[in-house]
Amino acid sequence: MAKQERAVRTRNALIESAAELFDREGFETASLSMISARAGVSSGALHFHFASKADLADAVGQAAALRLGRITAQDAGDTLQSLIDATYALVRALGQDAVLRAGFDLGDGAGRVRSGAALRRAWQEWVEEVLAKADMEGALAHGVSAEDAAAVVVAATAGLESLGRHDPRWLTADSLSRFWRLLLPRVACTTTLRTLRPSGSGH
Amino acid sequence: MAKQERAVRTRNALIESAAELFDREGFETASLSMISARAGVSSGALHFHFASKADLADAVGQAAALRLGRITAQDAGDTLQSLIDATYALVRALGQDAVLRAGFDLGDGAGRVRSGAALRRAWQEWVEEVLAKADMEGALAHGVSAEDAAAVVVAATAGLESLGRHDPRWLTADSLSRFWRLLLPRVACTTTLRTLRPSGSGH
Repeated sequence: MAKQERAVRTRNALIESAAELFDREGFETASLSMISARAGVSSGALHFHFASKADLADAVGQAAALRLGRITAQDAGDTLQSLIDATYALVRALGQDAVLRAGFDLGDGAGRVRSGAALRRAWQEWVEEVLAKADMEGALAHGVSAEDAAAVVVAATAGLESLGRHDPRWLTADSLSRFWRLLLPRVACTTTLRTLRPSGSGH
Repeated sequence: MAKQERAVRTRNALIESAAELFDREGFETASLSMISARAGVSSGALHFHFASKADLADAVGQAAALRLGRITAQDAGDTLQSLIDATYALVRALGQDAVLRAGFDLGDGAGRVRSGAALRRAWQEWVEEVLAKADMEGALAHGVSAEDAAAVVVAATAGLESLGRHDPRWLTADSLSRFWRLLLPRVACTTTLRTLRPSGSGH
């Protein structure tokens, strides 16, 4: 293995390890020695890559932002279906991926980037854009505002994330499908509604 | 002031002070000396009332449970309206009341009662009961399940609580009214819908 490749692997292992410990123990409790031990890396190697726990938090936040970016980049071929599919991908990733979960949870004091706030803002802006686009395409039901729908989608996904931290059943496709079954007939116009899959299109 | 009354006041001041510090600094960071200083009480007086920080967390959790109990005990004279009104009362209280906010936030390791889990469960069970009752009364729209509606109400209120911790605009009546404007026409049957106030009845 080339030296550079090894360095990238070590760095990624440290980010994964930090995310798991931030997620499980909290940012304050997780220590650099716990993080390096869990990653199977010496504390010297950790300090080669990261000067502080705040540096590691920034790196976790950036890795989480990349993953969120991949989730919102998927295109299902239809605007509302892309939104539905992204919520399933987000909920699934929050259930499985400590980096994304820790990224959403890192707040004031943990790193300079405050990745939790940045990720929530990025998700909210994307949901608002997609619903504004659906509105322009005439895909929303009469009398429904894209802003209201966006606020409800953002609140519901934040709620599943928050509840899922204590009870993983909230972060399942089944739990999300209750939301879309209830909300979609109110949000989508009749023509679009017939083509949409409230359980996700599996793209 | 009688001795007993003074003791009750001191105890309540300590609970308020602990809740504010748990809420602002986190349970781990808040110290007993910070809590007694903020309450204007000697550390001896604190130890007379509470043996440990976990004891204080339990008391915050119990005080929060009482407040939640008062919110869900209100009766608007109509089942669905009582649910709507309770969500407004909860959101308002979460915005203003550090005891309720800290109570919902206290998790594993903070006290024996894990008040966050207990409060979330109590709120969820109440929402489920109210919607099952509305269903039995024929107040729900055809084809809508009380369980689905309850899950969506619980997810949305948890989302507002979680988002409101970082941005207080989420914990406003305006933010909640978007949710009810969108959801009610899908959840309530046409007859009931005409009598409901999605912005709360102000009871």
